[in-house]
Amino acid sequence: MSRFPTVAAFDCALANLSAPDRAAIAAARARQDQLTKPAGSLGRLEEIALFMAGWQGTPHPVIERARAAIFAGNHGCVVHGVSAFPASVTATMVANFAAGGAAINALAGMAGLDLKVVALDLDRPTADFTLAPAMSEAECLAALSAGAAAVDPDLHLLVVGEMGIGNSTAAAALCARAFGSTVASWVGPGTGVDAAGVARKIGVVDRAIARHADAPHSPFETLRRLGGREIAAIGGAVLEARRLGIAVVLDGFITCAALAPLAAAVPAITDHCLAGHCSAEPGHARLLDRLGLEPLLRLDMRLGEGSGAAVAVGVILAALAAHNGMATFAQAGVAQSL
Amino acid sequence: MSRFPTVAAFDCALANLSAPDRAAIAAARARQDQLTKPAGSLGRLEEIALFMAGWQGTPHPVIERARAAIFAGNHGCVVHGVSAFPASVTATMVANFAAGGAAINALAGMAGLDLKVVALDLDRPTADFTLAPAMSEAECLAALSAGAAAVDPDLHLLVVGEMGIGNSTAAAALCARAFGSTVASWVGPGTGVDAAGVARKIGVVDRAIARHADAPHSPFETLRRLGGREIAAIGGAVLEARRLGIAVVLDGFITCAALAPLAAAVPAITDHCLAGHCSAEPGHARLLDRLGLEPLLRLDMRLGEGSGAAVAVGVILAALAAHNGMATFAQAGVAQSL
Repeated sequence: MSRFPTVAAFDCALANLSAPDRAAIAAARARQDQLTKPAGSLGRLEEIALFMAGWQGTPHPVIERARAAIFAGNHGCVVHGVSAFPASVTATMVANFAAGGAAINALAGMAGLDLKVVALDLDRPTADFTLAPAMSEAECLAALSAGAAAVDPDLHLLVVGEMGIGNSTAAAALCARAFGSTVASWVGPGTGVDAAGVARKIGVVDRAIARHADAPHSPFETLRRLGGREIAAIGGAVLEARRLGIAVVLDGFITCAALAPLAAAVPAITDHCLAGHCSAEPGHARLLDRLGLEPLLRLDMRLGEGSGAAVAVGVILAALAAHNGMATFAQAGVAQSL
Repeated sequence: MSRFPTVAAFDCALANLSAPDRAAIAAARARQDQLTKPAGSLGRLEEIALFMAGWQGTPHPVIERARAAIFAGNHGCVVHGVSAFPASVTATMVANFAAGGAAINALAGMAGLDLKVVALDLDRPTADFTLAPAMSEAECLAALSAGAAAVDPDLHLLVVGEMGIGNSTAAAALCARAFGSTVASWVGPGTGVDAAGVARKIGVVDRAIARHADAPHSPFETLRRLGGREIAAIGGAVLEARRLGIAVVLDGFITCAALAPLAAAVPAITDHCLAGHCSAEPGHARLLDRLGLEPLLRLDMRLGEGSGAAVAVGVILAALAAHNGMATFAQAGVAQSL
């Protein structure tokens, strides 16, 4: 059965977000304060341990079963020359994921993540959103449900990422519609277009925003009109992870843009999310700020496919290793201060 | 036999630094350009792969044998109340390292590092450097050699870190002497002293700088007069790693300060070093800038004992996993661009 059979099911999920376990956070904080280190000296590692404790509902959170879910889709707007690569690369890269040759294969392996690649109707690109909604209601609901279906209830952590030639243009449109500011402030080189390409992308997004200006401002309508199948799937996966109490690590600009329409309406949607990194795509830092997320890494990565988030999992694993593995002052016989 | 039997041996090592293998870097760069991703899209991961290729002298660098070498020492300046913890904590934490209960035990385990703890005459603190040189020539040479002895020739990577109550005061003195600027700009809360403690630290460093103002400005004399045994050992380990072509990951403010007198004279000393992180200690960002190093992580950590560098090893492992594990465009049949 699909998780989001109707728009109402999506709206209901977004309106009824679960909260972290405050007792588990308090117990984890009490443990942190007893570990053999000056209070607070592990910085964000301590915050991560508390965050994971809250969503796992235990003072001793673990990551034994974690997944990178990578969603792929194709975009009608590529007819406007918005990418440095042909649309066929989406399918070729999905084949590369299956063959084990992509960055995410190596990085997921290093982080101990199983890799689930979900290719969404690659032979049926979304409509050109300068002319029509990118997806019908049924198509968008199917993509949301496909995202939810990639989340197993027993996961301890979920990494989400994407692949889709043209999708940084869709991401910019989502951000501009959800958060305002100028279109140019959300458009960047993506996989590597030149200045003329960036100008083309700005023009395309401008036309898309104008085309849908009078549409309802609901998260679903924004996703459906300006997003894409892989982008909607990310939204569905993040909502499903929330329902199941599974913490999420977001990848780059496009992955985060999938949450823009949701977060504009319900800012708490990112409460169970960590931003894996801040990418080199110029709009990403601004978007993370709007989402209320401080990235774990800043490594000038701009690949997508979950790559930055997968590297960030190493930091999360380190945080939990310290949290669970260290001795307390009492155990080690260390003076807690003068 | 000790690596640095004389001051001349130290000076000679610093004056004859090895260079990375430029052919290996070029070959690694050629490989990066053929991997299935837009050129440059893995950002710093690509730079790290090239850096490791250069120091290992191969286009396919690996990390199979890596070590965290943590040096511990005690400081005469603690009589001035510069730390929030009693000096006895240095030895207690060394015991905690041996028992496996410290942050570095958990973090080294997560990163696949063997842990070598070198406690340097903890029952003989250095002299109070406001009154006399912290170490005699023989003591400083012994500490430098002890650092070198912790570096095995077959290591693929070396993490260096430290433990020593009072050593953020010595580190501030080294930075002020090596790089100038105000003493206050190099002094911070360390393990957590309050504003009055910071003011005391500034006063102590001011007096130390004045006491040794007329001493020779050589790296060795600065290390010997204002450093400490664990600090000199870090310098020796970094020099020995350079001789052996082993890349080094530096930890926080104190570890980096060990290189300040060396780098002021010979900036290339940090060429084989990566800055694992930028700590919360205020002087660290300024020091990294002087050392010409861009940190891999910024996680507000301020523990020392190699902890930030150990977390950063996860990023380096990810960089090499991608570099060695990804398919080329030709292997995957992916179009390289339009």
